[in-house]
Amino acid sequence: MPPVNPPRGMRDFLPADKARRERVLATIRARYRAHGFDEIETPVLEEYARLHAGIGGDNEKLAYNVLRRGLSADAIRAAADDPAALTDLGLRYDLTVPLARFYATHRAQLPTVFRAIQIAPVWRAERPQKGRYRQFLQCDIDIIGDATARGEAELAIATLDTIDALGLTGGGIRINDRRLLEWMLGHFGFAADEQPGVLITIDKLDKTGPDGVTAELRERGTTAAAVDAFEAFLHRPSTGAHHPFGERQIRTALPDGAPDEVVAHLVEIGAAVAAAQGPSGDVPLEYDPFLVRGMGYYTGTIFELSHPSVSYSLGGGGRYDGMIGRFLGQDVPAVGFSIGFERIVDLVAADQDAAADAVVLVHDRDVPVAELAAHKARLVASGARVRLETRTKNLKALLERAAADGYTSFATVAAGQDGAERKPLA
Amino acid sequence: MPPVNPPRGMRDFLPADKARRERVLATIRARYRAHGFDEIETPVLEEYARLHAGIGGDNEKLAYNVLRRGLSADAIRAAADDPAALTDLGLRYDLTVPLARFYATHRAQLPTVFRAIQIAPVWRAERPQKGRYRQFLQCDIDIIGDATARGEAELAIATLDTIDALGLTGGGIRINDRRLLEWMLGHFGFAADEQPGVLITIDKLDKTGPDGVTAELRERGTTAAAVDAFEAFLHRPSTGAHHPFGERQIRTALPDGAPDEVVAHLVEIGAAVAAAQGPSGDVPLEYDPFLVRGMGYYTGTIFELSHPSVSYSLGGGGRYDGMIGRFLGQDVPAVGFSIGFERIVDLVAADQDAAADAVVLVHDRDVPVAELAAHKARLVASGARVRLETRTKNLKALLERAAADGYTSFATVAAGQDGAERKPLA
Repeated sequence: MPPVNPPRGMRDFLPADKARRERVLATIRARYRAHGFDEIETPVLEEYARLHAGIGGDNEKLAYNVLRRGLSADAIRAAADDPAALTDLGLRYDLTVPLARFYATHRAQLPTVFRAIQIAPVWRAERPQKGRYRQFLQCDIDIIGDATARGEAELAIATLDTIDALGLTGGGIRINDRRLLEWMLGHFGFAADEQPGVLITIDKLDKTGPDGVTAELRERGTTAAAVDAFEAFLHRPSTGAHHPFGERQIRTALPDGAPDEVVAHLVEIGAAVAAAQGPSGDVPLEYDPFLVRGMGYYTGTIFELSHPSVSYSLGGGGRYDGMIGRFLGQDVPAVGFSIGFERIVDLVAADQDAAADAVVLVHDRDVPVAELAAHKARLVASGARVRLETRTKNLKALLERAAADGYTSFATVAAGQDGAERKPLA
Repeated sequence: MPPVNPPRGMRDFLPADKARRERVLATIRARYRAHGFDEIETPVLEEYARLHAGIGGDNEKLAYNVLRRGLSADAIRAAADDPAALTDLGLRYDLTVPLARFYATHRAQLPTVFRAIQIAPVWRAERPQKGRYRQFLQCDIDIIGDATARGEAELAIATLDTIDALGLTGGGIRINDRRLLEWMLGHFGFAADEQPGVLITIDKLDKTGPDGVTAELRERGTTAAAVDAFEAFLHRPSTGAHHPFGERQIRTALPDGAPDEVVAHLVEIGAAVAAAQGPSGDVPLEYDPFLVRGMGYYTGTIFELSHPSVSYSLGGGGRYDGMIGRFLGQDVPAVGFSIGFERIVDLVAADQDAAADAVVLVHDRDVPVAELAAHKARLVASGARVRLETRTKNLKALLERAAADGYTSFATVAAGQDGAERKPLA
């Protein structure tokens, strides 16, 4: 037979991986719930028109669409020039479109400030490559209906607590505000229509460095005087100087004259994270004036979660006040944070649940099933996890396999005997 | 704006429902794991050809198919007479096809006897009606590679333990064997080609009674002598007499001469369930010679889970030795049990997690976010679940809402004050 595989770019999870994923999810759920968030669930399919309403940005192009049922031959022929007529539903490519739809459907039943958890798979028809999958899990928390810094503070604090609880201590959040980015670009003299392109280039600062960024801007014919001003700013002696998070760090990192209200919003978030942290230790926030985040829908604060063990970000989010009310026909303030579950699950220590009492009962082939059931039931009732194994010639291999599967002890069972002594598995 | 809803036949879950579903799932997972089953996960999409290989029975017709990406206008026109050319992937309509595919992919890495848990959504384009959904959760356990009664026994014992752990004590399992059904129909003289139709009619025995069944068989022109023999059997005085589960119950319920080997297999399952149950109480098994179960793929034992509180079944399963090896090109013994999660979740008591310490902090609008964060962090660190609420004019309504959402106490917070006293919520 030819090899049989899951569809391209999609994964199966074998027992050890699945158990680890469920363990990590249980911790994430428990921490988010402690911080006052409530989990919701929406169907994996949404109407085609909602998935293609412009909320999803580039991801809309990656959506899997469901073939409309019961199409006649004529309807199929007619759709040759309008393939959208072949579909009416699609698989979600993110959890934000469904959240906006959910909020429009159920707003009357939700609290004024609604703190949502969504832990669910999404699908994107990406070109398969290492670390990119066509089905993957997203873990989002969102606060809808709070325009104050309380929203950002609760998200940041809950996220840092969750990462800690997963054993990834030492995580931090890089923070910026889209309004400061826009103000800064105007300050240097970039024209309004140049700014989206300039942001895309600035987003590469970590990779290409200041000279790479200004070279790219010049190459693209961006207003020369603005690039000069920006370059001079990037090479100021004070750029890159370290201060603890707070007004001084923010003001030092920006040209003079940044809008007070936006700076005050960031300072307030920082003070809250510090207060939650208690007197000990540094505030795990860092102001990054060049943090951009790709999605065009952010309207204010943006964040990225970092950890010293890896160079890539472990999550991110921001304020997107225009979007959640979209299907409701009104503006609703909203801010969200998404942790990169697929990245995080690989970093969490793989140790088996140490407390688990897991026993393999190795029995001769002639032991009546009723005796096996009685042995097993006694151990299960005592709180153990129990696997029955028929004895094979190679007992050693059998026990090694069980140990690899997380079993911690074994006993052998012969017909008519009371349970034999349990011995630890190596 | 017009009303905004999830796609037809699909559901959103609001916080209270979602929390209850997750609580029930956590119990199911924990019990199945204790009995030595291991959870796996497969992608929700499978290749079209696998979903339409004949394993899925009638459900194949209800599959949602995914529109192939990048189809040209010509390719669409050419598909008018062959709509399957428009699709290459589909949403799974059950968990058995994916399990067969998973087993073929990973057999080398799995234990000889593999006990699988699958808890996952499936999709069927059913006509929407009360209690039928187009996306719903299935909870399956399957044992692959064990042809003995140990397989059925482990499934039945794990299922009964799980139902008990959910507070649905008093559940029971009706059991039969497809081979006994076939033997019995032959014994009465039904022709082989009549038997599938006769089984469909017998399946209605609970609803239409013996006279309804024989009337329907006569109407359809089934061999008259066989119907007469069957009718006489149905009206024997001993039919319906109650005996505890065991060989006597089975022999009494059948015509004389039923195949010993099949009867012994059932008796062995019963003895195992009794042994696991311990000396106390009745064995929660009942032999039902007319239990049919719809799916054509069963080859041996079939079960149905019942509970005194409801007239419908809460799950079922059986042995299907021909199917799991299908994509592997060889026969592999397999037996499975699926509990009807969507039915069971409605029966489980809705009580909030009584142990939870959940606090609402009602604060004035002018309390700095940093003070709120400190209050909240202290309570979260003490193990509580905490929600912040800005004080509104109608404090009573706010507290009632919080109590309905599962919060158990509240405190009010003013600027510059240490945490106020906590009071219970009514």
